[in-house]
This record gives sequence, C-alpha cells and structure tokens, in this order.
Amino acid sequence: MDEKGLAEILEGFKDGSLDLGGALARLEDYPEADLGFARLDTQRVARVGFPEVVYCAGKSDEHLRAILERLLSGSDPLLATKASPAQFESVRDLSPGLEYDPASRTIVARRPPEPPAGSPYVAVVAAGTSDYPVAEEAAITVGMFGQRVERVYDVGVAGIHRLFRRLDLIRGARVVIAVAGMEGALVSVIGGLVSAPVIAVPTSVGYGASFGGLAALLAMLNACASGVSVVNIDNGFGAGYQASLINGL
Amino acid sequence: MDEKGLAEILEGFKDGSLDLGGALARLEDYPEADLGFARLDTQRVARVGFPEVVYCAGKSDEHLRAILERLLSGSDPLLATKASPAQFESVRDLSPGLEYDPASRTIVARRPPEPPAGSPYVAVVAAGTSDYPVAEEAAITVGMFGQRVERVYDVGVAGIHRLFRRLDLIRGARVVIAVAGMEGALVSVIGGLVSAPVIAVPTSVGYGASFGGLAALLAMLNACASGVSVVNIDNGFGAGYQASLINGL
Amino acid sequence: MDEKGLAEILEGFKDGSLDLGGALARLEDYPEADLGFARLDTQRVARVGFPEVVYCAGKSDEHLRAILERLLSGSDPLLATKASPAQFESVRDLSPGLEYDPASRTIVARRPPEPPAGSPYVAVVAAGTSDYPVAEEAAITVGMFGQRVERVYDVGVAGIHRLFRRLDLIRGARVVIAVAGMEGALVSVIGGLVSAPVIAVPTSVGYGASFGGLAALLAMLNACASGVSVVNIDNGFGAGYQASLINGL
Amino acid sequence: MDEKGLAEILEGFKDGSLDLGGALARLEDYPEADLGFARLDTQRVARVGFPEVVYCAGKSDEHLRAILERLLSGSDPLLATKASPAQFESVRDLSPGLEYDPASRTIVARRPPEPPAGSPYVAVVAAGTSDYPVAEEAAITVGMFGQRVERVYDVGVAGIHRLFRRLDLIRGARVVIAVAGMEGALVSVIGGLVSAPVIAVPTSVGYGASFGGLAALLAMLNACASGVSVVNIDNGFGAGYQASLINGL
Amino acid sequence: MDEKGLAEILEGFKDGSLDLGGALARLEDYPEADLGFARLDTQRVARVGFPEVVYCAGKSDEHLRAILERLLSGSDPLLATKASPAQFESVRDLSPGLEYDPASRTIVARRPPEPPAGSPYVAVVAAGTSDYPVAEEAAITVGMFGQRVERVYDVGVAGIHRLFRRLDLIRGARVVIAVAGMEGALVSVIGGLVSAPVIAVPTSVGYGASFGGLAALLAMLNACASGVSVVNIDNGFGAGYQASLINGL
Amino acid sequence: MDEKGLAEILEGFKDGSLDLGGALARLEDYPEADLGFARLDTQRVARVGFPEVVYCAGKSDEHLRAILERLLSGSDPLLATKASPAQFESVRDLSPGLEYDPASRTIVARRPPEPPAGSPYVAVVAAGTSDYPVAEEAAITVGMFGQRVERVYDVGVAGIHRLFRRLDLIRGARVVIAVAGMEGALVSVIGGLVSAPVIAVPTSVGYGASFGGLAALLAMLNACASGVSVVNIDNGFGAGYQASLINGL
Amino acid sequence: MDEKGLAEILEGFKDGSLDLGGALARLEDYPEADLGFARLDTQRVARVGFPEVVYCAGKSDEHLRAILERLLSGSDPLLATKASPAQFESVRDLSPGLEYDPASRTIVARRPPEPPAGSPYVAVVAAGTSDYPVAEEAAITVGMFGQRVERVYDVGVAGIHRLFRRLDLIRGARVVIAVAGMEGALVSVIGGLVSAPVIAVPTSVGYGASFGGLAALLAMLNACASGVSVVNIDNGFGAGYQASLINGL
Amino acid sequence: MDEKGLAEILEGFKDGSLDLGGALARLEDYPEADLGFARLDTQRVARVGFPEVVYCAGKSDEHLRAILERLLSGSDPLLATKASPAQFESVRDLSPGLEYDPASRTIVARRPPEPPAGSPYVAVVAAGTSDYPVAEEAAITVGMFGQRVERVYDVGVAGIHRLFRRLDLIRGARVVIAVAGMEGALVSVIGGLVSAPVIAVPTSVGYGASFGGLAALLAMLNACASGVSVVNIDNGFGAGYQASLINGL
Repeated sequence: MDEKGLAEILEGFKDGSLDLGGALARLEDYPEADLGFARLDTQRVARVGFPEVVYCAGKSDEHLRAILERLLSGSDPLLATKASPAQFESVRDLSPGLEYDPASRTIVARRPPEPPAGSPYVAVVAAGTSDYPVAEEAAITVGMFGQRVERVYDVGVAGIHRLFRRLDLIRGARVVIAVAGMEGALVSVIGGLVSAPVIAVPTSVGYGASFGGLAALLAMLNACASGVSVVNIDNGFGAGYQASLINGL
Repeated sequence: MDEKGLAEILEGFKDGSLDLGGALARLEDYPEADLGFARLDTQRVARVGFPEVVYCAGKSDEHLRAILERLLSGSDPLLATKASPAQFESVRDLSPGLEYDPASRTIVARRPPEPPAGSPYVAVVAAGTSDYPVAEEAAITVGMFGQRVERVYDVGVAGIHRLFRRLDLIRGARVVIAVAGMEGALVSVIGGLVSAPVIAVPTSVGYGASFGGLAALLAMLNACASGVSVVNIDNGFGAGYQASLINGL
Repeated sequence: MDEKGLAEILEGFKDGSLDLGGALARLEDYPEADLGFARLDTQRVARVGFPEVVYCAGKSDEHLRAILERLLSGSDPLLATKASPAQFESVRDLSPGLEYDPASRTIVARRPPEPPAGSPYVAVVAAGTSDYPVAEEAAITVGMFGQRVERVYDVGVAGIHRLFRRLDLIRGARVVIAVAGMEGALVSVIGGLVSAPVIAVPTSVGYGASFGGLAALLAMLNACASGVSVVNIDNGFGAGYQASLINGL
Repeated sequence: MDEKGLAEILEGFKDGSLDLGGALARLEDYPEADLGFARLDTQRVARVGFPEVVYCAGKSDEHLRAILERLLSGSDPLLATKASPAQFESVRDLSPGLEYDPASRTIVARRPPEPPAGSPYVAVVAAGTSDYPVAEEAAITVGMFGQRVERVYDVGVAGIHRLFRRLDLIRGARVVIAVAGMEGALVSVIGGLVSAPVIAVPTSVGYGASFGGLAALLAMLNACASGVSVVNIDNGFGAGYQASLINGL
Repeated sequence: MDEKGLAEILEGFKDGSLDLGGALARLEDYPEADLGFARLDTQRVARVGFPEVVYCAGKSDEHLRAILERLLSGSDPLLATKASPAQFESVRDLSPGLEYDPASRTIVARRPPEPPAGSPYVAVVAAGTSDYPVAEEAAITVGMFGQRVERVYDVGVAGIHRLFRRLDLIRGARVVIAVAGMEGALVSVIGGLVSAPVIAVPTSVGYGASFGGLAALLAMLNACASGVSVVNIDNGFGAGYQASLINGL
Repeated sequence: MDEKGLAEILEGFKDGSLDLGGALARLEDYPEADLGFARLDTQRVARVGFPEVVYCAGKSDEHLRAILERLLSGSDPLLATKASPAQFESVRDLSPGLEYDPASRTIVARRPPEPPAGSPYVAVVAAGTSDYPVAEEAAITVGMFGQRVERVYDVGVAGIHRLFRRLDLIRGARVVIAVAGMEGALVSVIGGLVSAPVIAVPTSVGYGASFGGLAALLAMLNACASGVSVVNIDNGFGAGYQASLINGL
Repeated sequence: MDEKGLAEILEGFKDGSLDLGGALARLEDYPEADLGFARLDTQRVARVGFPEVVYCAGKSDEHLRAILERLLSGSDPLLATKASPAQFESVRDLSPGLEYDPASRTIVARRPPEPPAGSPYVAVVAAGTSDYPVAEEAAITVGMFGQRVERVYDVGVAGIHRLFRRLDLIRGARVVIAVAGMEGALVSVIGGLVSAPVIAVPTSVGYGASFGGLAALLAMLNACASGVSVVNIDNGFGAGYQASLINGL
Repeated sequence: MDEKGLAEILEGFKDGSLDLGGALARLEDYPEADLGFARLDTQRVARVGFPEVVYCAGKSDEHLRAILERLLSGSDPLLATKASPAQFESVRDLSPGLEYDPASRTIVARRPPEPPAGSPYVAVVAAGTSDYPVAEEAAITVGMFGQRVERVYDVGVAGIHRLFRRLDLIRGARVVIAVAGMEGALVSVIGGLVSAPVIAVPTSVGYGASFGGLAALLAMLNACASGVSVVNIDNGFGAGYQASLINGL
C-alpha cells in the first residue's frame, strides 16, 4: 500500500464513507501481512517506493502459493524472481494475469502501462547471448516500474565495433546497466565512454576460472573507469531496481 | 577540457581572436597529454563530465609530480586519491593551492564553490569512527563536483537508535552512500528504510575473518534490501563519484 | 544412559536385585555399543547431558538402520538430522514412534513432554521464509531437550518494523538463536538490541556471491554487536543444542 | 548509564533534589554522546547490560583520546581492546586509573571488585603459549564483568595428558572458552568432555596453510562435538563478553 | 613387470629357452603398453615397486575397458579406484576375478595372499561412520600390497573414550592412517599419542563451512602434533599406498 | 568475410559485374549480422584472421540454431565448442556437413584441407587419458586453422620415460600445447626441455584439493620453467587458437 | 654455453688446438656448475635457447653474489629479476658492466646489440602508469634477446581513444604483451582488435578486491577474445621471454 | 625424560641409592613441567620418542627464555624452530652449547653424535636455492634424531638433467624429503622415480599467484605420482620429524 492508499482510508474514515470496522479491515495487512511462516512487508511501497518483490528460490510450493495469493489480493504490481518453471506451474492457476518468462525466470502480474515514447530511459547493455537471461531480468524489472528500457545485446568487447555502432543509444540513457560474464570487460569500456552512472551486473556465464561469476565480479569491482557500481552475480533484478530509482529521480 | 573550452578555442580561431598557432597550442594536450610514461586523458571532461582523477598509489614521485604539474597547468578541479603523506610532501611546492587531507589521503586543488543551502544532497553515512577515512574520501569527492554533502557518522547498527535519530536527514538525500567495515549490516538496514538509491562502500576495518574487507563486501553484495549497489573495498572515491553523477541528474 | 541409570544398575547389583550376569548385560553397551562399523557413544548422556545425535548425511541405509535400531532399543530421546526423505523411508518401519519433518529433515522419537507455560525460553528468530528449514531444525532440537521455544520468523532487516513489533518476545528470551542467509545483517541488529547471548546461524540461502552461505558466515563472525557467537552454515541443530545448554543453566 | 542511573535522575527531578537544568545536564549524553566524529552509545548499559567497549585499531590518536576522555567522565567500567602500546602512551595521562596489558593489548579502568571465591566461573582454556594474548583478552573481559575466571593454559592436544589433569577444573565451569590456533583440535576434544556450553576462539597462531587463523576457524565451525559456537579469529573479547552473559544468567 | 620378470626373459634368451622373437614378444609392452589413447606404465613395478593403479573417474567406458583388459593380460595385482557402479558393470565380464566394493568404489583382481598373523601392520583409524568409504579405500589398498591391516573405525574425538579403549591396537602399528572429515581433530590427538608416523586423510564428510573437505585438510596440515603428513581429500588410496611403502621397510 | 571477400564485392561493383543492390545484399551482414538477440561479428576474419567461434554452453536451442544457420549461410569454416550432445541433436539437421565429436564436445563444418606432410606443426601433449577431451578440443581447433597437429597423449610425469621416448616429436614442434590436470607438473618438465613456446592448459581432472582445476592452474602460472603461458581451465580451444596464430607466423 | 661453444671445444680438441686438460677445463661447468648450494644450468642455452635467468627474491646476498660471479665468468647475456636495490648494492662491484633498473628491479649485463630498424617487433602495451615497472621488466627481457620492442604505455580502457590512436603500432607487432592491473580489461579489448598472439600480464596494481592482482588474473584467464594466454601476476619477465621465443620464430 | 630415565629413578629408589625426596625431586617435572604460562610435555620422549620441540614464533622473549632454561636443565637434545635472530640473542647466554642457524632459523643444543657412514639415510631434495632455508630446517631436524641425511639441492625440473645426475643418491635413500616452492613439480617427478616414501614440503617461495605457497601445496596434494604425502607450507621441521620416524623403523 502506498501513501495515497493510506490517505484514502484515513480520509474515508474521517468523512464517514468508511466506518471503523471497514477501515480496520483494509488496514489489517498493514504494515505487514502475517501468514504464519511469513510476514509480508506491506508498508514497503510507502517506505521505499516499490512493493515487496518475491525471491522464489528455496521456497516450498505451499509457501510461494500463499505469498502470491496474498499479494494478488492487493492492487500493486507483482514481481517474483528466480522462479523455476515448476514453481510457476504450481501457482499459475491463481490468476489469469500471471505471466512467466522462462529465460529470466520471472513471474509478473499487473504490469504498469508503457511509458511515453520520449521518456528518459535505462539502457540495458549485455555482452553475449549467454547473458540474455540476466539482462532480461533487469529489463523486465525496469518495466515493472513503468519506465522505459532500451536493450542493447551481444555487444561484447571481443568485437568492439558492435558496441561503437550503438554508442548513441547507450549515451542517451539516464542510467546504464551493463551485464557481462567471463571477464566483464564491457563494464570498464562503457564506463569510460558515458557520463551516466553505470550499474554493473556480473553473470555466472563462463567456466573454469570464472568460478561461477567471481572473475567478472572482481573485475567489475576493480573497474578502472569511474561512475560504476556493482550488484551481486546474476542479480539482474537488483540492477533494474536501482536503475529505476535513479531514472525516476 | 570541457565542451565549452573546446568551443571557445574553435570560435576564437573562427573570429580571428586566435591565430592558427595559438589554437593548436591550446589544443596540444587534447584529447591526451603525452608525458612519455603517461597519457593524460584531457578529453574526459567532455566525454564523461569530470576530469581525470589521479590514483597515487604505486606511482613514483617523479611520475606523480609530472602528472600533477601538467594538470595544474589547466583549469579543471584537481583530485588525487590514495596519496601518502610522503607523496604529498614531494609535490606540495607545485602550487600553494594544493590541500592535503591526511585522514582520507586526498590531495585537492581548485575546489568548486559551495552549492546553495537548499541543494539536493548526497548523504554519507558511516558505521564507525574507524570508517572515517573512507567516508571522508567519499564526501570530499562529492564536494569536488560542487555538490552538497551531509555527513552522518558513527551510526552503526550495534546502537541502532543512533541511526534512527538521524533518519530524516538520511531520508532527505537524493542519494545515500553507506560506508561500513566488519559485517557491513548498516547497508541492509538503510536500504530497507529509504527510497533513494544506496551506494555501499565496504571498508577494510576489522580483523581476522574480515579478510581485509571481504566480509563486508560479500555482505553488501548480498544485501536483502533492494536499491543497493556496491563499489570496491575502501573505494570512497568511486562511491562519491557515482553519487555525484546521480545527484546531478 | 545417564547417571541415574548407571546408579540403578550398580545399586541393583549391590542389593541383590540384579545378579552379576544381569548387571553385565545391562552394561553391555556401556560406554559404547559396538556395531562393527560404528561405536555408539552410550556414555554421552552421563558425560555431556544429551544422548548421541545421528548425523544422517553420507550414511548408507544399512548403517543408518542399524544405528537407529540400537538407539531405539534404549530409552533416551532420539534425534537424527540431515535425513533425506529416502533415508526416512528406509527406517520408518523400525518404530511407529518415528516422526519425520521434511522441511528440517529431522527424524525424532520419544519427544520429551512440553515444558510448563512460563518456562524460560529460547527465541528462534529467522530472517526470511527461505531460512525456515534451518530455523525449524534449531527449534525442534530445543524441543528435544524438553525446553520451551518461541518462533519469530520472517523478520529480516529489509523491513525492520517487522522485527521491532516482536522485540518484546525476543527480549524476553534467555537465549536468542538468529538465523539468516544472504548478508546475515539480522544478527548484528538483534545483537545490539538484547542483553541475552545470541547464537547466530548463517544459512546457505542466496546465490552468486553468497557462495553457499560464506557471505552470511563471515558477516556474522564480524558482527559489530557484542554477545554473538556463530555455528556452521545451516547448522540449526548445533545452535539449538548450545542454546538448550544455556537455557538449562 | 544503566537503568538505576536513569531512575536516580528522574526521581531526583521529581523530588526536587535536582532542578530541570541539572537533570538535563546529566542526561545530555543520553542515549548518545555526540563527539562530532563519533556518537558514544551511552544507552548501551540499559539496553544490553554492559557499556560500550572501545575498539582501538584504526582509530587516530585524537579520536581515541576524545572517546576515552568522555567515557572516563562517566562511572562505568572502561574496556578498550586491540590498543597498541603507542596508542596507550597517547592516552595514559588521561587518568591514573588506566591500566594497560601489553600481551592482550587491553586498556582498562574502574575494574569491578573481585567476585566471591565460590562464584560460578568461566574457564579460559588455551592450547599453546602463543595463544596467551588472546586468552588473556578473554579472561580480562570476564573480569571486567565482575565475574570469576579460571585460566587453564598450554594444554593442547599434542600432549593430551596435560588437559586430562585439569579436567575437573574445566568441568566445574559454567561456561568454557577454548582458545587455540593451528588446527584448533582442542575445541572438539573439550566439547566431547564437558556439558557446559563451549565458546571457541580461533587464533592466528600458525603459519603457511593456517592462513591467518582460517584453518582453526574452519575446524572449530566444523567441530564434531556439540555445544560449541565460535567467534572471530583472535576475538578473545567477544568470547569473554558472551561467556559473561551466560555465566551471569 | 618387476625385476624378476625381466631377468627371466633375459636369461631365457641367453640359455636358449627363449628365441629372439619370443623374447621380444614378451618385452613388447615394456616399458610401456601403447593403447593409442593411453600408454600403460609397465615399468612401474621395477621402478617404484607396485604396478600402475587405474584412476577411473573421468574415463570413458571404452578407455577403461581397454586399459583393464591389457592389465588383466599380465600377472600383477590389479587395483582400480574411484570406479562408479556403472563403470564396473561395463567391465565386469572381462574376468571372473574382478571384485567390486561399492562403498570404497574400488575394483580389484588377483589379490595377494593374506600375510602371516604376527606381521607388522598398518592401523586404519577413522573418525565417523560417514568416513567409512575412504577408510576402506585405504585398507583395501594396503591389502593389495599383501600386507596386514587393522581397522579401528568410529572413534572420533567427540567421544574420546572410544579411542582410548583401542589405543593399544593403534600404538602397536608400524604406521597409522588417520581418516576424518569435519574438523579432522582425530589426527592431532593420535599424533600426540603414538610414536609411529601418521598419514592423515581428510574426507569430504561435512557440510557448510567444511567446503568439501577443505576444513579438515587445513586442520591436518596445521596439526600441532609432530610426525603427521597429509594426502589429498578423500585419497584413501594414496594413504594406503604410502603406508604400505613404510610398513614394508 | 575476409579481406579477399570484401575486395571482390567492391571490385565487382566497380567493374559493373555487381550492381548496387547486389553489392549491398552481399554486404548486409557486414561487419555484423543482427539476429535480434545476437550480433554475429562478421568482420572478425578481416580483423583477427579467424571467423567467430560459437561458445554453446548456456545458449538456448533456439538461439544456437539461429546462430549456426546464419554462419552456415556463409563460407567460412565453422567451429562451435562446449556443445552438449542434446545441443548437437537440436541442430544436426541444419546441414549434412556438421560433425560432432562427443569427447571434446565440438561441432565443426567445412574443415580446411589437410596441410602438407612436412608443414610446421603444433604438438598437443597430454598428461593422462582423463585429459583426452580437452586435448582433443585443442587439436581439433588447430585442424580448423588448416594446420598440422601431432598428438602425444598419456605421457604424465609419474612415468617420465614415456615422455622422454617422444621428446623428439615434441622438440620438433613450432609450438607446444601441454594439457594436464591434477598438479600439472607436465608443463614445467616440458618447459625445461624445449625451446618452443609452451601454452599450458590446466584441466579439471582430479578431485578434492584439485578444486575443479585450480591446483593445476596455479601450478602452471608458477611454472619454474620459462617460455610458458596459460589459458583457462579446460580451455583447449583457446590454446589451439593461440597456438595456430603462432604456428602460422 | 650454446651449441656453437660446445662445438668449438670439441673441434679444438680434435684438431689439437686444445689439449685434453684444456678441453675438460672449459667443459667443467657443463652441463651444470656446482656451487654447493646451487647448480647453475649451463646447458640451458643449448637446450632451450637462452641462458639461466636469476630470480633474486629470497636469495641471500652470499648466494646471489656467488651465482652472478659464476655467470659473469661466462660470455652469455646476463639477466637477473626481482632484485632489490640492496641486493644490487651487494653485487655491483662484481663488474662495471652490471646495470640496474630500479623501476623494474632488473640487473643486466652484456646486452645484445640493438636489432635493425625494420625488424619484427614485440609491442608492450600497458594500461596505467602504475603498471610501468612490470611493463619495463617485459620490455627489458625482450631487449636481452636482442629483439626489437615497442612500448605503448598508459592506454587503459577508461580513455579508450588513447588506445585507438596507437592501434597501428600495436597491430604491426608480431606478438603483443598486454600489461594491466585492476580489472585487466585492456587485454580483452586488444585481443579483439589484433590478429597477433597476445600474452597477458596481470599486475598487482589495485587495492581492496583486487586481492593482489587476483582480479586481473582471473579476468585475463576468462578473456572473451581469442588468441590470449596469461602469465603469473607481475611476471613481466615471463611474458617477455615467451614473446621473444615467438617473435624469433 | 625417556623410559630409561624413568626406570633409573624407580630402581634407584628401590635399591636405596635414591631416597624418597630425591626421587620425587627428579620426578617433579614429570609428566609436565608447570611454568605457569606453559606446561612442558616432559613425558613426550617416553610417549612418542622425541622431546618437545619449541615453536618460537609468537612467543615473548620472557616466555621463550623460561622454556629453554627449563629444557636445558634436562639432558635431552634441544630443538627450537622459527626463531628470529632477535629471539636467539635474547637466549644465547643461557648456555654456550646453544647454536643458531640463521638460514633455517633453528636453535639447537646437545646434538646427537654423527651416525655411522653406511647408515640408512634421509635424502633432502630441494628445487631451488630460495628453498634452502626450509630444506635446511628439515635436514637439521633429521640430524637432531641422530640420523644420517644427504642433501641434494637446486635440482628443480626446469633443468631436469641436474636431477637425473643425482638419481642414484636419491634412490638410495630410505625416505625422501622433497622441498619446492612455485609449482612444486619436483615432487611428482621424484615420486615417479623412486620406491621410497616421499614427504613433500611446499615452500612460500614465489610471488603473485603462488599465494604464499598455496600453489605448491595444492600441486603436491594432487601429485599424480603415488607414495607422496605433504606437510604444511615451509614446514621443514615436520617433514624432517616424520622422515626420521620412518628412517628409524
């Protein structure tokens, strides 16, 4: 529930359109909804500007179902990440509005409308096709904020002309998300070419001494270009979230 | 040299106030100044919005001196980081305008003027007094962008009431820099309380299993709160740089 | 066998109610029961106050079955941890009293009676719903000591008001077990708010740079709050065991 | 300031023995004392039962001096850890009551009186003479809680008869602190012999593959004996603190 | 082929009982047998005293089959380690003499006869029942050298009386192999109690911060007792091999 | 497309054999072919001398199929690495010319003709039969450059006479690729025996403290012999690629 | 001694210009010179094409002096690496021909003559001025092979136009050495732009999560560009050595 | 005190040559000598065959002096390891018999007599001159057992002919100690050439990715040759100790 929702309830009660019981009922799940095993943070919109996002990995089907059911009973956009196909199957009957993207493993509902064409945008730049799932998780998250996103994929530095040909699109962004596995060099090159803040997402793409994304993570933390910060390995969601906060300033 | 400087030279040449020799002389160091062992990136202001910053660690006294001398011959603000007291001694005679802060080990010259009182600001929040040097590196960097910075120090979560008493100041910021060593929990707590983007700076404060800041770094990368990204251990400069880009949007 | 059991045998022999053969038979498995491949530590109750607990991971079905059979022939409470569903299937016919909890993967038998309502208690506090299995392993272990346990789940610091609303319950505990994955910040926040000893349990919940729980483990070892100690990643049992020792003082 | 101190002020104001100005003056540093660069957590005694302890490493002489000065102006016991000899020299003139122990690098003032002879005690058990500084940090911390401590040093498992000869003293303790470097096996052996909770302290004693105490830390976290929890490498203070909380139950 | 076999061929040729073609045929596979993808080291018995042992992990069924077939065509004892059940199925028809032990995953053929009862022996001491497979790999290897082995299993230090009750058997050994997972403390305790050399085998038994046996490995390398050396994690074969070399001196 | 192909188009247009539309059509995919999710680097032959190689791991079947289809529409040799059998099944109908090697997991098409017998060659030397897949990936890559390769397999240092018997073949090479898992000692021995550059490939063959090839990787980076450089763990392709560049000089 | 030197001695003896004693005296140090504590590998020129290079770190002054003295008594070029200024002081009186470069910490004597102007060359490309010492170690090593070297320094990717302006020089090289610390992205960018083999040298330049060069090392091993291999951190010598082997083909 | 010493005291008391007071006085330090901060394990000779060895690192001068003084009052050989020159200075006046070796940093007293010429021996084989200190620590330890030791130094595999020329001496040993830093390949080569057990000692010689000896340690643990076990990095003492136990069988 965001501040407007809270104000409506309070004013409804004040002007008599809502009696005490009704007001309490609508406030019942505020600032948390107690499911016994879980306490949904229903105050989050008011406090940090976006509703609680569901991290699906490691949750039992029963827990996940109960959580989504409760969130679907509200009216906020719904975003759930790292959901396996089997998890989606176990909840898809909850609402016809649930959509699943198997590449990024995200479940969404109640997508915000598309932003106007000339809106400031977040550029999601990805190094290789194997980075596609993480890049899409970031792009979908930005979309759930109702913001504009531009995708620039497969422009890794091994063929750097591909990147330069899209430089205008990247430089036009208010924030850039740079997604790369292996050695993550894309981040440093972009960081040296744009004046927008760059949020780097290391991916676990690679093998051997990539150590599950550690190589890319360390590289990005040590990027010689300024203006770069980093999120967890494969955390497209986190990058999309922060980029949206910045793009919305 | 920023775009305005470039334009002045070109127009001076066009309107005759500058002859060819003079124009070339002023462009001699553009887009790089070749010192033999170093190539200063004089195009950086035009390209990414801020002049090249000097990373002093590992540079010989001769190299550092030559680089600062060249930069001082221009007119951009000057910032040099990770400078030891001995390094500062070896260059301090270059200009009376050089200032050294021994805590953060920064050298600055040509500070921009203070921003107006009500400007949007960056809040630099630090967990403990041992994190002071890194926090100051961040705050000084923001100042070199000519932006407003508010310091909120020694508010680690072991005495969380200290943090809550300053929450209004933190929540008022356009961007928050959170600096912490040891377990870095401050970042997650702040991330859950504000709607501004949070840039986390792990510090090497700690001992034993802190492994030189690794514990704080990993903790911040795994922060359960959204809206957080992370820079390198002890990289106050990097956080201040990115925060300034965001605050200036 | 505890000290009382030993004394009974010895006095039975002294007063003649038990002849030598009978006494020896009852002592046959003391201080160890030799199964060939295993030697059960039957002296453990007398020595450290709780019978040997069975760690199931890595044991063959035959070995596990033989061990549980022998332990069921005694009269002490039985606790087996990290048991897969398949392992439980392979032993469930040994006794109708065997209970299996699939979330925490524990097998128990001969649960002690519930403690009186006002007993001193252990609070098990968990950050997220994905930490539920580990938290339950801790809570079930405390129950096997016949002690009172209070569960406070899903109160991670990303929505810290959820924690504050339960602070009285947490502060009323004689010992607190704090369970968290990802960055483990819950531990430091609780450590700064209570005067009871806090036993921290990092969990393997997370991905990427959580490195299987390493991030949470390091964070907890570096907790800036005092009064905290740490057990192995996912070791709910170990935390429950030590908490029971302390709660029973 | 503890609860009693707060009550005195409030009642003094109520019964007129303290006027408003006097009450405010005495409350000025509550719940925090603002030194600009630091905010002393003066509420800590009331909240968690022990005043703020000063971690000296990484603090400048000026900061350390200002902090100790402020704490000495109160009446609580004072404990500062990881203080170098030079740091002590820079503050020793603040009060004749300051004592420095060069082995454990602790500064103390206002030691509590010795506890009565038969009090419950904490046993501090150390493996080798090189572990002495960490063991002493633990023992001194317990002493600052006004509790009884028994030292059992140099009883590492390479000569296990030395340990068995002191087993009665160890078994008589309400809590055991086990301090060891290298492979840390002492912890597992003690954990299997006592029914008291054991707090393990890995030390950085060793070389090569001890990796600064990592070997001992990992060993202790994996101790096969139950009832054991672990603090950071070389964190004698943390173990002493938690042990005192438990011993005081 | 050992030195005796070589001598027989040479002398057979010298005394005419073997013509040139026959001698060459018998020497064809010496000092290596070329299978195209593999070169069997047939000189090994003569050079280091034991035939080449087959490491099965990662070998294709075709390669493994060809190698075993060639080795079975000789007369030396055959030992293959880390063989999966499926691998054994793919080769079991090669000879009725092939035996498979599913716990230790070893394949053997042409076992040497049992050594006389009073022979010097290797003691294989294991901490827990989960360490059984690795301990058996060691014991079977010693048996393939035709040497006596005594098994002392499940005597971990959490119940140290179990170890002391078998101390005579352990002290009677010419070499001791100590096998343990988790924290590996068994090694240090044994090292302090015996005068024989101790070969330590860390196992991957454990979870969380055991990091696949790393904790035990580091602990054993740092054992405070002298006379200890260490082999790779789970390398029962390597320990058995070296112990046999020593026991055979 | 290589430089010759580009020139043909341009000259065809100049001499009229190609009209504008035809020239543009043939240049459509130059310097990149845009598949939406991927941008094939068609300029690579001209720029670095070899067409883009497809890294299959982590690519969806749809993406992989689309990429291979486009590459097959050209005329360059085609090489795809780290392809699972299932991936090959999903593309094998694209062309009868596709060949799959299940050991090295490579897909190739349009192999260059065999080089003349006396050509300079790359020697691929492998330590054990378990290293066969990685060695073959290297050898196949060299073959795709149309160069001569000599295989010397199963010559690990545990039976060093096997290596010395092939030393002439190894010493005759213009470049040596040395492939080894476990401790990787083969590299240092070869590095001390040849005057050609040696490219070392660590493999993930091993267990326990091999940590997925880390042990071999570190060993090779620290090789005491000069003239050695190293590629990623299991990166036979990378070694073959660089060796071909060198062999082609 | 190289093959020519050996031949001269042998032919001198054959044609009588050298008697037996003289020949033996000149062969005394072949194929090794025994200094008691050291055995100089005097056969190395003949075997691998370059004399033994002295690694100075960790050697006592006495040992270093004795080794250099012996090598100076021959006629091969002399190269000693990682020599501290104090070590050079302890040997500088051995010969007026000894030269010391304090940046790269190399000692050389008997430099080969400069190669002709148009010779094929090695390009040494370095990212930042802090990488200068390692780059110089590489360049000096190439010079000791009597080969041409071109230095392209301070062209890191944060200002990528600096690199592009020197691309012709880099592309003209027969081999490229790329030296970079921090995130090492320079290597991937160069690897995608040239067709020569690239030898990457990670440096320890950086702080925090660079972990002494580990970040750059891992990045380079995972470079997405082909044709790259890697040497040890700060191993400019190793890169120069291998590059010279390749350049000399 | 060894068994003979104990027997003498007991028999002296029995036959009257020693009265009760005298016997007790001589037994006062048995089985441990209590120095307050330390408990010397005086039973060790009787139990494991060699007196307690003093590990000097981390001990204060006072503690070290007291320990050596007590040990010098007995009659056993004395060995102290890892002693800095300053530590030796602080104790050298205790006895004229104390000898210090600055390379290996060992203090010895009461050396046993030289063993007869043809005695079985331990071969200490070292790869490079920088490994000399660790090799000497091993050799001196063997000497303190009164056993014969043969040194074979500077025979690393980069010039493998140096090793082969000494192979007879190495093969003649009853036990081989192999000492190497960097990549530690010497161990695998020796392991494949001898039939004696090999004890491997990794050293911290190296830089960069040697990570303080970790590279050599991992390599040795993964040695492809059988018959090898490993001690801690730089632990020449441990290898010498175990080798002496084996050589003495």
